[in-house]
Amino acid sequence: MELKDRKEIIVRFSEVDSMRIVWHGNYLKYLEDGRESFGLRYGLGYLEVYSHNVLIPLVKINCDYKRPLEYGDTAIVETRYVSNEAAKLIFDYTIYRKKDMEVSATGTSMQVFLTPQGELLLTSPDFFVDWKKKWGV
Amino acid sequence: MELKDRKEIIVRFSEVDSMRIVWHGNYLKYLEDGRESFGLRYGLGYLEVYSHNVLIPLVKINCDYKRPLEYGDTAIVETRYVSNEAAKLIFDYTIYRKKDMEVSATGTSMQVFLTPQGELLLTSPDFFVDWKKKWGV
Amino acid sequence: MELKDRKEIIVRFSEVDSMRIVWHGNYLKYLEDGRESFGLRYGLGYLEVYSHNVLIPLVKINCDYKRPLEYGDTAIVETRYVSNEAAKLIFDYTIYRKKDMEVSATGTSMQVFLTPQGELLLTSPDFFVDWKKKWGV
Amino acid sequence: MELKDRKEIIVRFSEVDSMRIVWHGNYLKYLEDGRESFGLRYGLGYLEVYSHNVLIPLVKINCDYKRPLEYGDTAIVETRYVSNEAAKLIFDYTIYRKKDMEVSATGTSMQVFLTPQGELLLTSPDFFVDWKKKWGV
Repeated sequence: MELKDRKEIIVRFSEVDSMRIVWHGNYLKYLEDGRESFGLRYGLGYLEVYSHNVLIPLVKINCDYKRPLEYGDTAIVETRYVSNEAAKLIFDYTIYRKKDMEVSATGTSMQVFLTPQGELLLTSPDFFVDWKKKWGV
Repeated sequence: MELKDRKEIIVRFSEVDSMRIVWHGNYLKYLEDGRESFGLRYGLGYLEVYSHNVLIPLVKINCDYKRPLEYGDTAIVETRYVSNEAAKLIFDYTIYRKKDMEVSATGTSMQVFLTPQGELLLTSPDFFVDWKKKWGV
Repeated sequence: MELKDRKEIIVRFSEVDSMRIVWHGNYLKYLEDGRESFGLRYGLGYLEVYSHNVLIPLVKINCDYKRPLEYGDTAIVETRYVSNEAAKLIFDYTIYRKKDMEVSATGTSMQVFLTPQGELLLTSPDFFVDWKKKWGV
Repeated sequence: MELKDRKEIIVRFSEVDSMRIVWHGNYLKYLEDGRESFGLRYGLGYLEVYSHNVLIPLVKINCDYKRPLEYGDTAIVETRYVSNEAAKLIFDYTIYRKKDMEVSATGTSMQVFLTPQGELLLTSPDFFVDWKKKWGV
């Protein structure tokens, strides 16, 4: 089963740089919006994960920029869960420019599970094992 | 006695908007840099205040924009402590463009004292009374 | 006639600070979202104004913080046009926390009209005179 | 010859998230600070490149997070030029936590050359060919 979500994001004036395109670092906000929208849909949002006493910091991110977004554009972030055996949360992303559905950027992210004290969990926490079972991934 | 501090800040590319000037909201980062530089100089930094189990959230801020800062500019934030009887921390600010020392913006801020539980302190906490005595303000 | 707009904004994880509340400077993004939503509704958006060869930089902003917004909250920004005779654009704002409609913050902003060369317009540009007539403000 | 630069960056309060660590997206500001500090040292800054009528947007970025930076930390960004034959600008980065010189993050970035009209340059522009000759890279 493929788990994915689509989230619309309106480009903010403050996100555009002096080249009149969205500053590249702001795409990481869009990826996070996508990830969180996915989390709300599938029961894996930050607040939900926190309620299990687990933190999920990013350990790796990458982004490939294809076509710039501009002020006035709406972006669509498609977030897909990437199945894996490790105690890791992996997503990949495609950001589209809504008006023509051209690909603006693609990206991937990897998160790990930490205790509130900052200790790395080497095996997936129970709630995540259950979550994977529930969704068949 | 007048307590004041000057802090240099290099404008970041990501802080400039499509009009090629620093986006107005980013001046609040510069004010915070000024406030924190003041705090480090006079023993009133965030981490120092936290060590007394007190939070100091902003309750009011204003900013008047005079001349824009651009990418390539260095700003100088002058932060002045404003003496007052209330359980409040008040600062005023002048932001200069370093190359010609023209005034770019002025501002003021007001902070209150909270317990970590979010309760407002109606009288100044002891450490702040001591701090005012020490500096004669 | 009173011109006003309401715009919903979902708080981003990246907008929350280490006190677990929205960092005060991020409210200026919410005010800009409100202003731009107003502009789209009433034909006074940035891109529309630019099409008349006029820039409208902020010259003054203030914000009073009442109750913090947190991650998970949705904000509602109410933006109201403030009628005035000068060649200025003035708005005031109320930011509500959607879940209980408590006031989170209030603010005001003032913008002026500039030529693309950065010259201040001392009288309102034609398109703005027409705009005021159209809306009776 | 290896070209590299080291740049110190003080972590801002507003860059720290509710986990009390620097929000992962803000590392892209630090990478940009490093890249720009490199550019100022070696004559390849944004404004210098623009003066040759060339834009150098990011097309790819990645970042690996090792140990979090916190408020109160100073970061050191080491930026290294990565030699390559293509019409591309490639850097890699190591971000250290200054107090113990532990590695906080590593990253790489790739930029291309565009005309102001947004056309991709398939061969390196003259100024960049000269720059590479000058520095023997």
